[in-house]
Amino acid sequence: MASQFDPPSGTRDFLAADYEKREWAFGVLRSVFASYGFEPLQTPAFERIDVLLGKYGDEADKLVFKILRRGEHEASGDADLALRYDMTVPLARVAAAYGSQLPTPYKRYAIGPVWRADRPGKGRFREFVQCDVDTLGSTSPLADAEILCAQHDVMTGLGITDFTLLLNSRHVLFGLLEVFSVPESLSDGVLISLDKLDKLSPIAVIDELIGRGLAETVAMELVVTMTAPDATDRIRTALKKSDVGVAGLDEVDRILALVSVHIPQERIAFTPRMVRGLSYYTGPIWECEAAGVPGSVGSGGRYDHLIAQLGGPDVAATGTSIGIERALMIVPDDVAARRGQIDVAVPVLGDDLAAQSAAFAAAARAAGLRASVYLGGSGKLSRQLKWASDIGARWCLIYGNSEREAGTVTVRDMVSAEQISVPLDGLAEHLAELAVTPDA
Amino acid sequence: MASQFDPPSGTRDFLAADYEKREWAFGVLRSVFASYGFEPLQTPAFERIDVLLGKYGDEADKLVFKILRRGEHEASGDADLALRYDMTVPLARVAAAYGSQLPTPYKRYAIGPVWRADRPGKGRFREFVQCDVDTLGSTSPLADAEILCAQHDVMTGLGITDFTLLLNSRHVLFGLLEVFSVPESLSDGVLISLDKLDKLSPIAVIDELIGRGLAETVAMELVVTMTAPDATDRIRTALKKSDVGVAGLDEVDRILALVSVHIPQERIAFTPRMVRGLSYYTGPIWECEAAGVPGSVGSGGRYDHLIAQLGGPDVAATGTSIGIERALMIVPDDVAARRGQIDVAVPVLGDDLAAQSAAFAAAARAAGLRASVYLGGSGKLSRQLKWASDIGARWCLIYGNSEREAGTVTVRDMVSAEQISVPLDGLAEHLAELAVTPDA
Repeated sequence: MASQFDPPSGTRDFLAADYEKREWAFGVLRSVFASYGFEPLQTPAFERIDVLLGKYGDEADKLVFKILRRGEHEASGDADLALRYDMTVPLARVAAAYGSQLPTPYKRYAIGPVWRADRPGKGRFREFVQCDVDTLGSTSPLADAEILCAQHDVMTGLGITDFTLLLNSRHVLFGLLEVFSVPESLSDGVLISLDKLDKLSPIAVIDELIGRGLAETVAMELVVTMTAPDATDRIRTALKKSDVGVAGLDEVDRILALVSVHIPQERIAFTPRMVRGLSYYTGPIWECEAAGVPGSVGSGGRYDHLIAQLGGPDVAATGTSIGIERALMIVPDDVAARRGQIDVAVPVLGDDLAAQSAAFAAAARAAGLRASVYLGGSGKLSRQLKWASDIGARWCLIYGNSEREAGTVTVRDMVSAEQISVPLDGLAEHLAELAVTPDA
Repeated sequence: MASQFDPPSGTRDFLAADYEKREWAFGVLRSVFASYGFEPLQTPAFERIDVLLGKYGDEADKLVFKILRRGEHEASGDADLALRYDMTVPLARVAAAYGSQLPTPYKRYAIGPVWRADRPGKGRFREFVQCDVDTLGSTSPLADAEILCAQHDVMTGLGITDFTLLLNSRHVLFGLLEVFSVPESLSDGVLISLDKLDKLSPIAVIDELIGRGLAETVAMELVVTMTAPDATDRIRTALKKSDVGVAGLDEVDRILALVSVHIPQERIAFTPRMVRGLSYYTGPIWECEAAGVPGSVGSGGRYDHLIAQLGGPDVAATGTSIGIERALMIVPDDVAARRGQIDVAVPVLGDDLAAQSAAFAAAARAAGLRASVYLGGSGKLSRQLKWASDIGARWCLIYGNSEREAGTVTVRDMVSAEQISVPLDGLAEHLAELAVTPDA
């Protein structure tokens, strides 16, 4: 039930365990991107409203969070700023702003929240993290191949093993439209319908194509060709009748050859039925599907003139957007486990012993361990041992009056409940040994 | 000059070098906080507007960025959400929302942007990162001491060596007011004036105190006591006449004793003139001053009832806010240097050699090196070597027709310009050796 203390609709609070897992995943992404020479870029949460609006159409504009003008202008009800809707519009602005200061090509990644006023739902949020990796200024198929290799490395780095990269090209699709004599006026609609072949039955797609005005025989032949068991071979053969189709096949095959040195063959597949809804793609397109996740956990392609349409310079561009929120749904828990947990808990068994307890914790930290001192009001050891267990401490350093008299500290193994006595002057050495214990 | 491509007023774009340095600093903070057992917390960028407004007074409310309602409600000009102004109001909401799920005490840190519609100026931004570390639910002075130790470790972790922690207590200040018979109606104003003793001359502060209605003799005696060379001793003696003053001194001395095992004596000083402007503090207060930075690079104290005033449960609380934007001004560049740079550049000397070049880069990455393949259009080695140099690559893997014939790859040291020939089947081993080269 929603409470007045919940975060706003469609947003989330991330407490320790969730935060650690997410931060670990972002670290994997940063490390993969950096290994390919992509640079980080961070832009502000909001942009001037004229930078954001009118770039992706009316539907997207409706989903933009707008910020009221301030001070005397607040009463006007006008907005002058808006929260970023994606990472591509800010990239276009940055490319325009810093042009010559940026390396050529400009290979950048951006990981950060974006905000969309979508109706919140299961797995759909109004604040979510987008991870984009793009190369501006290169027409080389090596640039496309590199993006695909990075997407592959992100998946394996996250511990996800059951995934497939679907590769296609807009030119393959244009070739198909030509070969099957689809009237140009129907092209966009036909592609949108074909894109549904992974969700709808062939019959349903045929019906939709006919509804769009495509001749029945053409609709059936097209869908049969694209859903046959040997669809890829049939399509390769059919495309030979079209120049643009041949060019599309070349594009796909070139990229498949370039990634073959790195991506195992079973992880990538030429998928002619895969369309990608967005019309700004100009060449190869791809999606990453993973077992256990609806939709894609990454998608992208080449979009050679979009940056100019978004207000930036007219540069070649290719990139992918990693669906990290979806990927996190299937990241194995053990991959990110036992992060952020406490190694050493230090009870405080009397006000006069507090400074010594604080010193033990400092010594543990100096040895590279995470240490927490008891900050509660109870002087009872049993209560404090329960606290140590609650915070998941691996060891406990106990120092009461008897230890003070003996000049020792009792080190308790919280897993085995074994206790040993360590002389004060041997504690640093003992902590150093604990720090290299495998499960510390 | 401002251009249409600049980020919005008061915000910044962070390109690679700045981003890497900031991310490195945040990593230092996370690691220090975790070593004390503080947990991360991340809340949404915006809160419902009623959660944010009316918590810090009218002046703060004016600085809140408000978000317009959406859809049919947009035309109303009303706001229903607002960007977070600090990390404390969200903490209060989280403490109320997740109460029993949180550990007791709840030790949390939060690192993230906050937004304030302040007039932008040198070093003052509308979007800036706030780093807060707080303990809710402990009245123990160990909790205050821990926060101070963490602040100390953050400074040294960032490579900042010339800093001082100023420690005081609200009770010391109340004691002073009592000892000098300052009328209660003048208390707040007198404290505000005393807070200026580090900026204004003693005479100017005396004038201000008199202007506030304090008797001339009292104003002079107060300021003389607080600015004398032996001010601390004088104040310690004076405070013995006040119960609350004695309690304040005990508070300060207790904390000094607890931190003495970890913070060197010269890094922390009882500073009775230090006031902290905010009236919500209820006990010890502190600031961190560092050479080369105006103002403080961290400040905080105990604020035992503020969380309740902000809409959360009534819990004891203590914490500090690290001025990371200011600290970054004096982080030595070499501490964060050579991060994110490329280890290996791989030219592409012909389309038919591209797959092999991509394979070399993949091999370098497998060896743990950062590798970038040439994505430009030039086939000339000289042009591509310039590119390798521009991106700061340490080595270059050259593979042209002569190498192909010989079955070797030429490894060029970009610093010494020395080149060696490595047989293809020995490349993986050679890359593994490069990966452990000290300056790789």
